[in-house]
Amino acid sequence: MEYTQIFDLIIIGGGPGGYHAANVAAKAGLSVALFEENSLGGVCLSEGCIPSKAILKSAKIFQCASHAREYGVNVEAFTIDQKSVVARKNSVVSKLVMGVRGNLRKNKVKLFFSHADIVNCNEGFCVLSQEKYYRSTSLIIATGSKVFIPNIEGLNDWFKSGKAVTSKQILNLECIPDELVVVGGGIIGIEMACYFASCNSKVTVIEFTDKICGNCDSEASAVLLDNLQKIGIEFKLNSRVVQFTNDGIVYEQKGEKSLLNCSLCLISTGRKPNTDGFNLQALSPKTTKNGAIECDERMQTSIDNLYAIGDVNGKSMLAHTAYREAEVCVNNIINKRDLMDYTCIPSAVYSTPEAAWVGESEQSATEKGLDFTVKKLPMTYSGRFVAENTQASGICKVLIDNQSGIIIGGAIVSDYASEIITVLSNVVALKLTVEQVNKLVFPHPTVCEIIKDVINV
Amino acid sequence: MEYTQIFDLIIIGGGPGGYHAANVAAKAGLSVALFEENSLGGVCLSEGCIPSKAILKSAKIFQCASHAREYGVNVEAFTIDQKSVVARKNSVVSKLVMGVRGNLRKNKVKLFFSHADIVNCNEGFCVLSQEKYYRSTSLIIATGSKVFIPNIEGLNDWFKSGKAVTSKQILNLECIPDELVVVGGGIIGIEMACYFASCNSKVTVIEFTDKICGNCDSEASAVLLDNLQKIGIEFKLNSRVVQFTNDGIVYEQKGEKSLLNCSLCLISTGRKPNTDGFNLQALSPKTTKNGAIECDERMQTSIDNLYAIGDVNGKSMLAHTAYREAEVCVNNIINKRDLMDYTCIPSAVYSTPEAAWVGESEQSATEKGLDFTVKKLPMTYSGRFVAENTQASGICKVLIDNQSGIIIGGAIVSDYASEIITVLSNVVALKLTVEQVNKLVFPHPTVCEIIKDVINV
Repeated sequence: MEYTQIFDLIIIGGGPGGYHAANVAAKAGLSVALFEENSLGGVCLSEGCIPSKAILKSAKIFQCASHAREYGVNVEAFTIDQKSVVARKNSVVSKLVMGVRGNLRKNKVKLFFSHADIVNCNEGFCVLSQEKYYRSTSLIIATGSKVFIPNIEGLNDWFKSGKAVTSKQILNLECIPDELVVVGGGIIGIEMACYFASCNSKVTVIEFTDKICGNCDSEASAVLLDNLQKIGIEFKLNSRVVQFTNDGIVYEQKGEKSLLNCSLCLISTGRKPNTDGFNLQALSPKTTKNGAIECDERMQTSIDNLYAIGDVNGKSMLAHTAYREAEVCVNNIINKRDLMDYTCIPSAVYSTPEAAWVGESEQSATEKGLDFTVKKLPMTYSGRFVAENTQASGICKVLIDNQSGIIIGGAIVSDYASEIITVLSNVVALKLTVEQVNKLVFPHPTVCEIIKDVINV
Repeated sequence: MEYTQIFDLIIIGGGPGGYHAANVAAKAGLSVALFEENSLGGVCLSEGCIPSKAILKSAKIFQCASHAREYGVNVEAFTIDQKSVVARKNSVVSKLVMGVRGNLRKNKVKLFFSHADIVNCNEGFCVLSQEKYYRSTSLIIATGSKVFIPNIEGLNDWFKSGKAVTSKQILNLECIPDELVVVGGGIIGIEMACYFASCNSKVTVIEFTDKICGNCDSEASAVLLDNLQKIGIEFKLNSRVVQFTNDGIVYEQKGEKSLLNCSLCLISTGRKPNTDGFNLQALSPKTTKNGAIECDERMQTSIDNLYAIGDVNGKSMLAHTAYREAEVCVNNIINKRDLMDYTCIPSAVYSTPEAAWVGESEQSATEKGLDFTVKKLPMTYSGRFVAENTQASGICKVLIDNQSGIIIGGAIVSDYASEIITVLSNVVALKLTVEQVNKLVFPHPTVCEIIKDVINV
């Protein structure tokens, strides 16, 4: 086989995991090729984290206008121009894609905007792209994930007629629907529910479990739910959609079926790893029963020098997890020992108010039989929270290991939660004790300082 | 002398230092009396940090309305109702004062809402309040500070006529002046300039030094200044007010005098320790040349068991410094060794955008002859910043010690800076290296994650 070019490292997929690995590896002196067939930045940049934050900022502005009077500002009339919101979102994405591209170029990563297929070879790894062969010593699979569409009667017809949309499609909606049903109360579902409810859609969330936001602490999750109900979102928990008909959505709750009429339905029932379409079977690394590529704590798959980072390994499906996995992976490629730790990965929902959590929740700690104390405070304890809010409620909750005094997790529902969770996640990651945190100075008045207050309750 | 009551600890002054010391000491089992003759919470709660944040929130809402169109929200007409802003501010303060009071009661601190004078006594310390004597083993002076009024020709007349106001008075202003001159470009001056400029006053800041925000890194300070100029604030740096006349304010810049006409002038030229009016001379602890009570790193004055915390010791004049000093002080009273460290006290300006800094600035590190590297990024590097902003600029700057790789300081100009500075200040306080911070996971997309990006530039 004749190779057009030989690299130390080839990466398939240019999302957060892929491009970050490329930059880190190139900075460490490796020759790196990155193949991306769609858009640099992946789902996160083009149809996930970033565009959702751009439109949520518009929703926050709209909410500001709605609540202005409570803060002494009289706003006469205001409307949302969804076309402009989407146009701005698109320009934000373009700007950031250019930034990612510029960074890769600066670091001399060889960028291929083309599809790549893995092919068999005797030495190292080989990919075929646009009829050319490329070889490398190490290969990183960073192909991400795709929307998971549940198998529900009638759903396909709804997708065909445009009455059902995915989380990708809804970001390009150019008008605000009168009603929206969101199937799935995870992070994505809640953010979109919050967006459209803020813009005065009548929103109903149908969630299979008994709470929203996945593995978030149940109490914090309930506080968030309470806030979202106040802005008019209706929740059907413990509920399962069983059919999409011409009349509407049929869901089952406590054994009873009900019909929900709506003009638009968002399906946000999770994502599944992208392992198809690039001839992964040429290598056939072990996969999990969910179809994710298995890997160890160095991010290596069952095959030497073949790595899997980001959503495709199915471990956490968050951009910042992918970033860290990229670092761990590259460190191991350059023989610098580094292990991935999933215990301190923060999660955040960019609703109003925000919610964020890290480490153990009261439920996970109880399940594990840990010996811990829960400390909590309502956010109205915080001077800044009171100064900046009129009606929202919030909570800060922290779990402390009884033997060591080490802080093992917590959750915050409040403005700024997505930003200040880093303070808590660093505390958890560094295994700091209450006594150590007490010696740190938190600025006043901040919402953040409640973390120090709460551990002393 | 007959004592009405004997305590382990008496505290004079119920601001952040005083009330926090009272709570911490009471929780540690001491019997505590707290004397406050004005308002619980002190300057911070009644005329400083908290009320300013309450009104700045209204300004942010007003700014949201002004810039709404850039985010796809059409707002027709909007006005600020300053009376409502002030009323809301007052209700925020009342709520929080009640919270402070509730906490003290819960902890069984004996609260005296009365003036207290120190009197001589043979054993421990004695104070006289409302004709009764109280004795204690330890005494904490936490009497705070008052506005410093410079000696400038004509200024007294301006105060008398209401054309000049202090930072306390301006918070109760019930209308927005057409023009405002702010004398002093420190944190308080800049926050008020930002408030009134956001509400469409024509604001001019006269600052004696060559930059705003005191010891903030010069480059970060310049980025903030640039943003403030964009909202219409004019700056006269290296300028000194020499006279207040009937025609206006005369200031001198580069040896040239100019006249500035204005209807209102805020004097925000600093604060000075409150050491008068409670018979401190009965004890006469050593004072500094600025009139502050001297104390060591255990917060003890030149007299055994007499402590001085908060603004009255003149060290840092920030509420969060007072909190930490309170903890250090009480720990020493109960014989738990604890020393005050002023190297990691964060500072924040709640302007739009915010600015915050901690540890060494490029200037202070250079002056000390440290061997360091500066790393910086414009905030447009941050996905969240781009997603949430249209025109603002910002910077994140971090200083790294070349020998150890330890992060020794930094500054951020950005939304959320006041909250996320805690991440950086904890890193600095814990003396973490670049390598250690690289193992931490910062959530994406946050503004905060730029701290990890910047150290890897």
